[in-house]
Parts: sequence; C-alpha cells; structure tokens
Amino acid sequence: MPRRSRRTQKKAGASPGTLVYIGEKKVDQPVVTLFVYNNERYQERQVERLEEIYPCRTNPPTSWINVTGLHDVRLLEELGGHFKIHPLALEDIANTTQRPKLEEHGDHLFVVLKLLKYDEPSGGITGQQVSIWMTSNYLLSFEENHEDIFDPLRERIRTAGSQVRRCGTDYLLYRLLDAVVDHYFLALDKLGERIDAVEDELIEQPTKDTLRAIYSLKRELLFLRKSTWPLREVISELTRIESPLIKDATLVFLRDVYDHTVRVIETIESYRDVAAGMMDLYLSSLSHKMNEVIKVLTIISTIFIPLTFLAGVYGMNFNPEASPWNMPELNWYWGYPAVWLVMAAIGGAMLFFFKKRGWF
Amino acid sequence: MPRRSRRTQKKAGASPGTLVYIGEKKVDQPVVTLFVYNNERYQERQVERLEEIYPCRTNPPTSWINVTGLHDVRLLEELGGHFKIHPLALEDIANTTQRPKLEEHGDHLFVVLKLLKYDEPSGGITGQQVSIWMTSNYLLSFEENHEDIFDPLRERIRTAGSQVRRCGTDYLLYRLLDAVVDHYFLALDKLGERIDAVEDELIEQPTKDTLRAIYSLKRELLFLRKSTWPLREVISELTRIESPLIKDATLVFLRDVYDHTVRVIETIESYRDVAAGMMDLYLSSLSHKMNEVIKVLTIISTIFIPLTFLAGVYGMNFNPEASPWNMPELNWYWGYPAVWLVMAAIGGAMLFFFKKRGWF
Amino acid sequence: MPRRSRRTQKKAGASPGTLVYIGEKKVDQPVVTLFVYNNERYQERQVERLEEIYPCRTNPPTSWINVTGLHDVRLLEELGGHFKIHPLALEDIANTTQRPKLEEHGDHLFVVLKLLKYDEPSGGITGQQVSIWMTSNYLLSFEENHEDIFDPLRERIRTAGSQVRRCGTDYLLYRLLDAVVDHYFLALDKLGERIDAVEDELIEQPTKDTLRAIYSLKRELLFLRKSTWPLREVISELTRIESPLIKDATLVFLRDVYDHTVRVIETIESYRDVAAGMMDLYLSSLSHKMNEVIKVLTIISTIFIPLTFLAGVYGMNFNPEASPWNMPELNWYWGYPAVWLVMAAIGGAMLFFFKKRGWF
Amino acid sequence: MPRRSRRTQKKAGASPGTLVYIGEKKVDQPVVTLFVYNNERYQERQVERLEEIYPCRTNPPTSWINVTGLHDVRLLEELGGHFKIHPLALEDIANTTQRPKLEEHGDHLFVVLKLLKYDEPSGGITGQQVSIWMTSNYLLSFEENHEDIFDPLRERIRTAGSQVRRCGTDYLLYRLLDAVVDHYFLALDKLGERIDAVEDELIEQPTKDTLRAIYSLKRELLFLRKSTWPLREVISELTRIESPLIKDATLVFLRDVYDHTVRVIETIESYRDVAAGMMDLYLSSLSHKMNEVIKVLTIISTIFIPLTFLAGVYGMNFNPEASPWNMPELNWYWGYPAVWLVMAAIGGAMLFFFKKRGWF
Amino acid sequence: MPRRSRRTQKKAGASPGTLVYIGEKKVDQPVVTLFVYNNERYQERQVERLEEIYPCRTNPPTSWINVTGLHDVRLLEELGGHFKIHPLALEDIANTTQRPKLEEHGDHLFVVLKLLKYDEPSGGITGQQVSIWMTSNYLLSFEENHEDIFDPLRERIRTAGSQVRRCGTDYLLYRLLDAVVDHYFLALDKLGERIDAVEDELIEQPTKDTLRAIYSLKRELLFLRKSTWPLREVISELTRIESPLIKDATLVFLRDVYDHTVRVIETIESYRDVAAGMMDLYLSSLSHKMNEVIKVLTIISTIFIPLTFLAGVYGMNFNPEASPWNMPELNWYWGYPAVWLVMAAIGGAMLFFFKKRGWF
Repeated sequence: MPRRSRRTQKKAGASPGTLVYIGEKKVDQPVVTLFVYNNERYQERQVERLEEIYPCRTNPPTSWINVTGLHDVRLLEELGGHFKIHPLALEDIANTTQRPKLEEHGDHLFVVLKLLKYDEPSGGITGQQVSIWMTSNYLLSFEENHEDIFDPLRERIRTAGSQVRRCGTDYLLYRLLDAVVDHYFLALDKLGERIDAVEDELIEQPTKDTLRAIYSLKRELLFLRKSTWPLREVISELTRIESPLIKDATLVFLRDVYDHTVRVIETIESYRDVAAGMMDLYLSSLSHKMNEVIKVLTIISTIFIPLTFLAGVYGMNFNPEASPWNMPELNWYWGYPAVWLVMAAIGGAMLFFFKKRGWF
Repeated sequence: MPRRSRRTQKKAGASPGTLVYIGEKKVDQPVVTLFVYNNERYQERQVERLEEIYPCRTNPPTSWINVTGLHDVRLLEELGGHFKIHPLALEDIANTTQRPKLEEHGDHLFVVLKLLKYDEPSGGITGQQVSIWMTSNYLLSFEENHEDIFDPLRERIRTAGSQVRRCGTDYLLYRLLDAVVDHYFLALDKLGERIDAVEDELIEQPTKDTLRAIYSLKRELLFLRKSTWPLREVISELTRIESPLIKDATLVFLRDVYDHTVRVIETIESYRDVAAGMMDLYLSSLSHKMNEVIKVLTIISTIFIPLTFLAGVYGMNFNPEASPWNMPELNWYWGYPAVWLVMAAIGGAMLFFFKKRGWF
Repeated sequence: MPRRSRRTQKKAGASPGTLVYIGEKKVDQPVVTLFVYNNERYQERQVERLEEIYPCRTNPPTSWINVTGLHDVRLLEELGGHFKIHPLALEDIANTTQRPKLEEHGDHLFVVLKLLKYDEPSGGITGQQVSIWMTSNYLLSFEENHEDIFDPLRERIRTAGSQVRRCGTDYLLYRLLDAVVDHYFLALDKLGERIDAVEDELIEQPTKDTLRAIYSLKRELLFLRKSTWPLREVISELTRIESPLIKDATLVFLRDVYDHTVRVIETIESYRDVAAGMMDLYLSSLSHKMNEVIKVLTIISTIFIPLTFLAGVYGMNFNPEASPWNMPELNWYWGYPAVWLVMAAIGGAMLFFFKKRGWF
Repeated sequence: MPRRSRRTQKKAGASPGTLVYIGEKKVDQPVVTLFVYNNERYQERQVERLEEIYPCRTNPPTSWINVTGLHDVRLLEELGGHFKIHPLALEDIANTTQRPKLEEHGDHLFVVLKLLKYDEPSGGITGQQVSIWMTSNYLLSFEENHEDIFDPLRERIRTAGSQVRRCGTDYLLYRLLDAVVDHYFLALDKLGERIDAVEDELIEQPTKDTLRAIYSLKRELLFLRKSTWPLREVISELTRIESPLIKDATLVFLRDVYDHTVRVIETIESYRDVAAGMMDLYLSSLSHKMNEVIKVLTIISTIFIPLTFLAGVYGMNFNPEASPWNMPELNWYWGYPAVWLVMAAIGGAMLFFFKKRGWF
Repeated sequence: MPRRSRRTQKKAGASPGTLVYIGEKKVDQPVVTLFVYNNERYQERQVERLEEIYPCRTNPPTSWINVTGLHDVRLLEELGGHFKIHPLALEDIANTTQRPKLEEHGDHLFVVLKLLKYDEPSGGITGQQVSIWMTSNYLLSFEENHEDIFDPLRERIRTAGSQVRRCGTDYLLYRLLDAVVDHYFLALDKLGERIDAVEDELIEQPTKDTLRAIYSLKRELLFLRKSTWPLREVISELTRIESPLIKDATLVFLRDVYDHTVRVIETIESYRDVAAGMMDLYLSSLSHKMNEVIKVLTIISTIFIPLTFLAGVYGMNFNPEASPWNMPELNWYWGYPAVWLVMAAIGGAMLFFFKKRGWF
C-alpha cells in the first residue's frame, strides 16, 4: 500500500478549473486509441493527431476513445474543449486522488473509478484512477497507465457479432465497469491467500513479523474498503437513475455488477473481522507464551532456591569448637545423607504442589 | 469452515453469460428428478433424457424438477435454453460463490440460497448453494450435491391430500425455503453445544486449545452471519413483492419463515457477543493465572534470597586470627542458633507481609 | 440464565402446523380460568370442561380466558379449533422459544411476549412465554406456568367500578402488557443490586469470582436485551396500527407502556456499558496488582543478589599460601567490617535508586 | 453519580394513575410560587392556599406556577384535578425516574426534563426532574428541590419591558429549556476540568486512583449521555410540531436551544472518546512500567547469577590432597585475580549485550 | 490541540441576544476591509468609519465586507443593527465555540464555519471561527484573526475578467467555502506526515513518546472530526436548499466542495482506523519486548540456579572425619572434574530444552 499521499490536494487556494495533474507520472507519452464500431464493421486505430477523433462527437457509430497517461494537461484541455467536458470534470480526471463518483446530466454521464491491482513484487495493492465520459454515441475513458485489463473487451469488439458490437455506449460502459470490478476479486483472492498464510504462521509459530503482517493486512483492507464503498454507491446510482443514456436491456447487466460489488464489500468486511480476530489471537498467543516461560522460571527457581539456601547453611563456618551448639550436624554420622534426603523431600513437595496446580 | 476460497471468481475479463462452473465437483454425475403432482395424482421419476421434462414448461399440473450436481455445464445450458432462463441467472446457478438473492420478473422468480450443514467429523459448517427458478406451473431447483433435507417434503408430496398437493409452486417454494431455514437451526444447535463445551473448558481449565476453539467459533459465526443476512433480505423481499406468482394464502407462511430467519440472526448475533465475552474471559483467566504463578515465585524468592545471603555471609573465610573484627560471630557460643533465629524472624516477617497484602 | 437451548427447533423438516410443544413441562396439569365481566357484574371460574367457555366466542360481555401450562397439545388444538386460531399461531403458542411478535388481522390480534422473572435462588433471570389472542369481545392468554403477576389485575376485575371493568379487551390487553413490562423493572432492579455488589467487590478486593460475576452479568444482560428489543417493536407497532380493536382512549395507555419499554432498554444498554467498564477495571486492577508483585520481587532480588555474590566471593577457598595475590582481603585487619560496609552501601544505593524511580 | 436506583419503579402491578412519589424527599415542605405578568404589570407571590391560583386557568395574563417539592401527593392530585392534568402525566411528574419526553395535545404541552448539576463536594453530577405543563395562558413547572437556576429568569420577569414580559407561555417555556440546557454546559465544563486533571496525572505519575478517576468519569459521561439524547429528541420535536401553542417567533429561539443540545451531545461523545483513549493510555503506561521493572530485574539477575555460580564453584571443598585434579586453581599463583578477571569479563559481556539490545 | 475549553458557554442564565465575546482576543484592533466589484470595475479599501460601508446594503454591485477580530462587541452590534442581522446570529458570530451551521431565510444565508490550521511550532491543529452573512448583493465575513487563506481569492477579484468578477455573492460564498475546505487538506497532509513518522518510530524503536504521539494524534483526529461532520452537513444543505440566493450555475461548484468535504471525512475516518491500529501495534510490541526480556531472564536463571545449588552442596562443611558418609565425593580422585561434567551436562540439557521450545 502506498504511504499516505503527502499531497492530497496540490492547489489549495487556486481557482477551480485550473488544470493541474496530481499524481505520479506513470507513462512517458499519453497514448490515445480509438475504436469505432457497429454491428457490421469496426475500426481500430492509435491516434496521432487529436483532429482524427473529432468527428466521433457527432457521427453515429459507437466510438470508444481511450486515453492512457494523464500528465499532459494540454491534451486534456484540448479534448475537454472539443468534447465540451465541464472544467470541474476535467479537473477530476487530472486529479488522481479523486474518490469514485457519478455525475449525470441530460446528455452525458461522468464516472470516476478506482482500478485496483495486486502488485506481486511489493505484495501490496495499488490503485489507479479510471475516468469515463459517456454520451449516447461516444465514450471517452482516461487511465493513468496502460493496464491490460481491457484487452479481453477489445478482443470482443474485434469479434464480429459479439454482444458489445450489437449494443451502444451504455453496454460498453457496463463492460468497463465489469472489468474493473472483476479485478477487485483478483485483489481479494491475493489478500485471501495472504490471510491464509498469516493464519498458518499464527497457529504454528507466531513471530514479530506475523504482527507486522496482520497490521499491514489491516491497512490494505482499509484502503480497499475506502475505494469500494463509493464504488458501490456509484453503481447503485447507475442502476437507479432514469437516464435515456442507459437502456433497459443494460440495466439487468448493471444490476449484476452491483451484486458483484456488494459481494466484494461483504468479503472485505468479513476479512476485516478475520484480521481483527487474528490480532486478538496473536496477542493471546503472546500472553500464553509468556505464561509458559514464567512458569518454567518459577518451577526451577522455587525448587532450587530453598535447596541452595540449605546448602549455604551448611557451608557456614561457625566454629564447632567454640560451642557444642555450633553446627553439630556437621559431625553427625548421617549428617550429609540426611541433608540430601531433606533436599529431595523439599524438591519433591514442590513438584507435587506444581503438579496439583496443573503447571505442567 | 472452509478456507477462504482461492478463486472467488474464475473468469475476470470474460464475457458475461460465459457459463463456467465455479466450485468443487461434489457428485460424479448430475441427477435430475421430476415430480409432477396435483391434488388427485402424482408422478415421480428420475430423468434419463432431458426431453422428458420439456412438457412441464407448459402443462398445467405443478412440476418440480430437481437437479443435483452443477458441474455439467452443457446440461445447464440445455435446461436454460429450453426453460428460457436468463444467461446471467444461469451463470449465478453455476457460480456457487454467489450470495443469496432474489430476482423477480413478471413471469418467474429466481432465488439463490445457501444451505448450511454442520459437518460432524470436521466440526465445521459447510455450505452448498441451492438455486430455484420458479414460474406459475413448474419449479426448477439446483443443488450441488445430494442432501436428504428435502426428503420429508418428497414424502409429503407422495402423501395424498397433503397441503403441498393441494397448493401450487409458491407453496412448494415456501416448503423448500422452510427446509433450508430449519437446517440453520440445526447448525446453530450444534454451535450452541460447542459454545457450552468451550465455556465449561474455560471455567474449569482453559488451555491453548480453548483459545483456538474460541477463534474457530468466531469464524464459524462470521461465516454463518455472512450467509444469513442476505437470506433474510431475500425472504423479506419475497413477503413484500406483489407478484401474481405468490398467492395471498402463501404469504402468511412466508412471513413465518421470515420470523424464523430473524430468530436465526438474533441467535447468531448473541452467540457472537457470547464468543467475544469468552475471549475476554480467556484473556483475563490467563492474566489471573500468570499473576498466581508470579506470586508463588515472588513469595519463595523474596523469602529465601535474604536467607541465602545470610548463610553466604557466614560462609566467608575471613581469617579470625588476622583480626578480632574478622567474623567473631563464628566463635560465639550461641552464634549458630542465633543465625537460625534471625533467619526464622526474617522469613516470618516476609510471610506476615505477604499475608497482610492478601497474597495468599 | 439457562444454557443455550439444545433444541431451538424440534421439528426441522416437519410440516408447518404440526403442533409440538417445545419447552420444559412446568406444570402438571393445564389450568384454564375464565373471567367474564362488564361494568355491572363479573363472573370468575376455573374451567373443567372446555365447552363451558365456547359461548365466550360470540357473547357480548368481555371474557378473559387464561390457560396455564402448554404441554397438553390436544387442549391447544381443541381451543384453536373452536376459536379459529390460525395453525401457525397455535404453533407459536406451543413453541416457547418464539421471539416476541405481533400479528394483526382484521378481527383479531395475536401477541407473543416474554415474561422475565429474577430467580432468587439461582440468581439468574428466567423467562416464560406469554401468548395473547385477542378479539373484540374475548381475550385468550397462554402462560407456561402459573405466575402471580396477573393477580393484582384479577383483583381489579373483581372490584366493581374499576377502570378495567368499564373498558373492553383492548384495555385488558394493555393491563397484561403493563404487568409484564413492570416485571422487567423488577428484574432490572435485582440486576442493579448485583452490579452494585460486584462493583464494591471490584473496588475492595477483586478475585477470580468477580470476573465470573461480571461475565455472568454480561450474559444476563445479553439475554434481557434479546427479549426487550422485539418487545419494544411489538408495543410500538401496537400504538401505530390503526385497528378497530384498539380504541383511541387506550392508545395513550399503550404509549405509556411504550415509554416504559424504552426506559427498560436504555437501562439495559447503560448497564451493558457499565459491565464493559467493569471488565476493563478488573483487567487493569489485575495488571496493577501484578505490577506490585513484580516490583516487590525486583526490589528484594536486585538488592540481595549482588550481596550474595559478594559473600560468595569471600567464601572461595583460594589458597593464600600459594600466592600473596590469593584473597589477601581475608587477612586484612578491617576486612570483614569493610565487606559489611560495602554491602550496606550497595543495598542503600539500590534502595535510593528504587525510591527515585517511585517504586515504593 | 448516584448508585443505580434500587427502585426504578415502585409500583409493579399497581393500577395506572395510582399516584406514588418515587424519589428521595428533598425538601421539607412543597413551595408553590406564582408569577402573573404581561407587558404592563407583573405580580409575584408565594402561594399559601391552592385556591389562589385557580383563576390562572382561565384568566388572560400569562401565569407561571412553580411547584418545588413533589412528595406531597395530595397537592399534586389537587393541582391535577383543577388544571385537568391527565392522570398518566401526573404519575410522570411524581415518578422522578422518568426519561425526558414531550407530549402534545391540542390545548397543552407536557414536557419532562432532567436538570443536571455538578455537585462540588462529591465531585459528581446529580440530576433532578423538572416537569412542565403548558397551555396558552399558564405554565405549571414542577421541580424536586429549589434550584436557583431560574433566578435570572425571575429577574427578567420583574424587569419592565423585557422580552419575556412581552411574550407568552411559549417564550417562557423556551427560557426554562434554555436555563436547563445552559446548566448542561456548566456540568460539562466541570467534567472538562476533571478530564484535564486526570490527563495531567496520567502523564506525570499514574496511580491506581487515576484508574478509578477514569472509571468514574466514564460513568458520569454515561449518565449524562442517558439524559441528553432524549432531551435532544424532546427539543427537536418541539421545533417540529405544528402546535398553535408555539408561535413562529419562538421557533427560532427553540432552534437555538436545539443547536446547544447538539453541541452538548457532541461534547459528551468526544469526552467519551477521550476517556476511552485515557483508559488505553493508562493500560499501556502500566505495561510500560512493568516492562521497565522487569528489565531492571533481568539485568541485575542475569549479570550476578553466573558470577555467584562461579564464586560458589571456588567455595567447594574438594580435597586437593586426594587428587591433583581436585581444584588445582585454588593453588595457582594468579588464581584469585584470574577469577576476578573472568567475572568482570562475563559482567561486561552481559552489559554489552543489554546495551546492544537497547535495554538501557 | 487546545485543552478542553474551560468555558464552553460564558453566559448560563443570561438573556438570549446578550452579546458577549467568547474566545481569546487574537488581534489588537478589529480590521474591516471592503471589496466592491462587478465585471467592469472593482474597488478595495480598508474601512475607517463604519458609515463608509452602509451604502453596500442596498447598492447593486457585489460587496464583500470582511471583519477581522471579533472581541469588539460594540462594532458587531453596530454592524448587526445596520445590516439587520438577527440577535441570535450575532451571538453566534461572537461566540467562537459555535459548531458549523447553516441558517436560511428568505433574503439571507447565515453560515458558521471552522477554519483549521496546522500550527507548525506546536505541531497541533488550531481552529478559528469564520461566520458569513450573505444576501443577494453583499456578503459579510467575520474571522477571529487575520489569515492569508483568502489572499488568492482577493487576487482573483483584483484580476479583471476573472470568474469571481463575473458572478455574484453566491459564487463568492463558494470561493470562501472552497478556500476553507482546501485548508482541511493541508492540515490532513501534515497529520499524514506525522502518522508516517510515528509509524516509522513504531516499527524501528517504539518508546514511551511514541505512545504519547499516538494518543495526541487520536485527539487531533477527534478534534478534526468534530469540526468536519457538521461542515459536511452545512455544505450538503447548501446544495439542497432551493434558495433564490444560490444560482443554478453555482450549484455544480458547491457540489464539488461537497465532494471535497466527503473526501476529508473519509480520510479522517481512515486515519482514525490507522491510529487505532497503531495503538494495538504499540501494545503488542510492548508485550513482545517484555516477552523477550523475560525469556533472557528465564534462560540465564534456570541454567545457573541448579548449578549454583550444586556448587553450594560441595561447599558444605560436613566433617569427613565424623563419618565415611560425610561428603566422600570431596576425596574422590575424579571428584572435581566429575562435578564440572555434571554441571556442563545440566546446562547443556537446559539449553537443548530451550532450543527445542524455540526460545532462541
């Protein structure tokens, strides 16, 4: 998980609509790709000059324009100017710390999403922002860096007769949402594996690293949760708005994505409960262990300390010649064996006492 | 309880409607059984060829088609195709990680349930998915493996004049729901017994296993809870939808099942509270025990350590001949008995101090 | 508090409407008493043959039929048959694990309540189920065993001119509810006394029994809470349903009972908070005590261990004749007193150090 | 804070409307004072015979009748009879364990409040019940004992031309509410001071008394909270009911009191959070301290125990004459200094080890 | 963070509308500045005599009057009198312990906000109150002391053709809100840095200061939270009221500020979760450390205590001449080496036992 962003908002005091890219620069050069398709034909192209895509604004076949890399503010401004994207929406696209949201106006929908990905090497979850601007005949999507999660979708578009080719931008929007939500499951699976691993560790031999692993799990889940709840709101709203942009046939698909989101949330919440339970388990393992250690110390100490004392007594140098009361035991015939017997009796009594108390 | 499923969703990026079975293969061969009945007669048969059940779609007497084993995707597709089951519903039937839900359309109801069973050998609760597709004259139910929980219901159908024979598919649906919810009570009873057992252990002699038992109880309850809340929603919705498929006479029965579900939930919640309380009790028993151990250590140590020191002093070898100040006690007449007296006084004072502090 | 009921539901899989008594048999023989009254006259009788009460169904004066003892299923069936009680309601009456609920139909109300009683000898709270079937001219009440909590009410009915004589079954229902809720306060008072006692113990000398007492308090409160929230719902619903069975004049009384229920709930919730606080207090008392014990151990040990070491050194037997460097101190003139001085200095320094640290 | 009231409800089973005073007797003799005022003139009088106030019921100028001392049930009954107070309301007035509530009927409002006061000597918060019965031209207020919190209000009434003189009973009601809520702030200020004091103690030198102080703080806050939430409801309802008794001009003042109540609640909630945080801080201070103590014990013990062992070894009495292998070290030339060197080395190594571990 | 204010409310019992300044005096002399602007021209001036600003009340161009320093009650009264500010609003302006709120009347809006600032030297968050009184053509803002957070806004007003110059008071209000909310992000960023720092400390070497740092973090977050939730309500209400004062074009901007507030709240809540997690981590680090310390103590003690006992035994002075059973070992040929061997065996066995238990 990334550290808490040092800059949640770069532009305190600046005018609204001032376009500033907030986030890391993740690709060298923004890449714009264009899909134009309908049931009969499709066209796919990497865009060199923005003018190429301007006709999409009004021409009938469904167009999907995907922009990868958001740090080129001029590009965003140009696109925004031509496609009449509201300055505040443009700001949201460029500010990658935005929370998921949906804005609906008569002729367009604006959706901001978080795409989560489990980062294998670091073992953490990273997120990037995906923004979508949709009208009845074109859909603009913006992503921070190139992810292959939309590739299966692209493949479907290339396939003649596929459902996506038969439907409009609303179905395309659904497919994008579906791809994003599906990746939440992948991230959750990875987290589930980590939870299993930590749990095994916890039961076998908990160490200080186990503690850190639980703590980091809890933080990942917190991060996931922060992204998922607003996502659920967005999709729930999508299924409820009565916009002409969303056809009835698409609603059933959106409701399906909504169900998936609810399942993601429930899984996150139950993982959080499990993680809290593991913390408790860790703490009580620790107490239990300390208890064991202290018991060993106590058994050994309380057995030998009185014996050592006794040995010390008969190591005293009182002069037997000065008085008949001075350590006559030292001269007894059975003195030494008797001391051993006494010692064994004391030790045995102690052991019996500990046994009765159930200490071992 | 099963481990967190490694694959919550197998098909990230795939097209919706692609039928993939998600879950373990629990039976070798899917089995399809058919009940056709009305008040006068009934017919029961194991279906060999799917064509046998096609007439059920339109013919008047109530039909109940039960499919056991869901891994045969082709069978599902064929059924789905003939009975016009929506592709997304078909997907939900095959994906056994679905959460309970209800979908209502003009002419059919689609219900997904979790059937819970206490698994005696492993001592955990396992769940299987039961999906129901109901129209006004037939009801399709899908289960992962054969459970005998519907046997009493089958027996009732075989009995002439029973209520289920007199009513339609909505009453049949109620009976299926009722059987499922009743098994939640059985699982809860088993958990209740385990809670009692753990509690007895906790009061008599808590061990590290007690801790694990509490932890596992908490996880079972979490799992139960995750299944039960959506189940409650489903049944609550069933009592409120105004569908022509549900007759008014059946509503009072559905409300009864709903009451049972609420009772299940309340019992789960109070078990969770009890389990949380047991964790606290365990932790404080542990502290209490450690306290006792440390007290014993302290009493023995603090009594004997000063005495040992004293014995050590009179074991020193200062040469009495070198000076009259060198250990003259060793030559005193009452030296040795006096040392014993001093030691006894010190020990007694210590004991008195501990007694006053209420240490034993 | 009773242990978790081993059988929450005896009849998984059985047909609905199969009447099975679930609960302990608390009285030998069911007793049916009948009150028929109006403003002018009243009649009170213990019923021998059920036929005696059949006229109540239709005859105008208000009738109150009270059944004590529910295990005689045949009696219930006969009553149910004659008074046209719905089979599911009859089942609820016989199944004493029901949660409080209200069912309203055009011509009757069906109420299930829990009557709580503080059981003096066992020091726990026990509950019995009270079910009420009310129409405009008669009221049937069912209780598991004979409780005297309705005796003051019976006395009022016997008193000419009392309000209950002037009003109908709805006021009678209110009086029954009021009597039940009033007994919640008695149970709470007893619990309050126990909380005070536990708190005194906690402040004076907490023992392991204190812990168990807190744990048992928490469980009683959990049990109380589980009964009270649905009771509140039931009474709240009673004040809101617009049933011809409840007259407007009675509504103000029902709202009063409702206020009492809310007060019961608030008291339970604040008792729960107090109990949670006591658990924390107990745990930290324990830590505090262990701290004290360990301090004593540390002070004694760290003072005497170095001294014992020193005594040990001068108890070594190095041969002074073999070398002038072998323990010349033993032959010094002031050797022995010097050792005592050094020891006193070490002990004093230790004490000073502990004092400065605020250890005693 | 008072102990949990032994009698929350004295009259289980009694008829509703039976007037019983529940609470401590706080004044010897009930005192009734009467203010009659309008814009031009005012009259103030201590009432000797109740008949004096009967004309207030119908006569136009605004009257405020204040009753101090509620244990004289006959007085209440007489007042109730004349002013037509509903028996249940009268019961609420006499039962001082009532929770704050508002009842609105066409021609009157009935309000029950808790007046909180910080009791300087005992350092706790005590509450008394204030009930108000208001109609369009008179207002009856009932308090358990005489508090001077209404004195500033009385002063305003005596002042010609003050707002209270220009307005009716609704403004008077607002002023009473405002005075009551203002005293919540005073109680909170006192609690805030105690929190600061406890916090200082916690940071400087936490003792067992600190723990008790936190516990008692938490209980006071619980008590406060229990009174304040229903108060908020009451005032919120007052601003929302559309009663002819509350003029529009008064609404803005009531909303102001409402804002104050919300602030009281937020302060209570944040104090509760702070108190919970202090408990955590106390517990971890305790752990930290124990850690320190144990470290000291460990350092001293682990350094000296091996040394003492070594000294013990050379204090053994093996006979060097019996064998050349029997303790030849004792006769070495550098034997004794060598032992000291070895001991110093062991001690130094231990210290180095502890230093490296960061133990001191 | 400031201590809990000793005086939350200075005027218990006083009449409403009595103007008393509650808060610290933060500037010497109140400063009133005036901006009058429209699209064409603007005028900026520091006001010497209040009469200068009176024309703003009715004259058309947009006026922004900013008052810095609120302790001069007479100034407030004069302003309030001329601009017809309701006495209760005036009281809220002067009482700087007010919670954020919005009041809407036909011709004006009254907003109270908290402006938070991270105080670099003390490392805490301080708040000042900003109140705004807005009508269709002028806006009065009141702040406790001069903050430069509105300077960028002033700069925009000075810039010809800026959006603020083209719009009315509602847009000005939005810009003020936006500036305030943006500073919450700055405060959160600082807190985020502190959280990172504390976390690093926690992982590397937690000390008692870490604990205090966590506690202080939690209190800052509590303070932030208390200010932010009502702020969110205020802005949410602003976007929903249908006031002629707020133009539709401004609504989209207000919704944007609302989104920012929600993000602030989510960040605060997740920081609170993180802080709670850090507390747990700290406590378990502490336990872990204590465990380590106790293990070292136990290993050293349990190895050497039995050995010391053995050495003590052979230091006893039993007289070999008195009996052949008195310590014959001392005269054995291999006696001394044998004792060393036995001791080494015991020590080795102990080490093996600890190794097997995984103690080091």
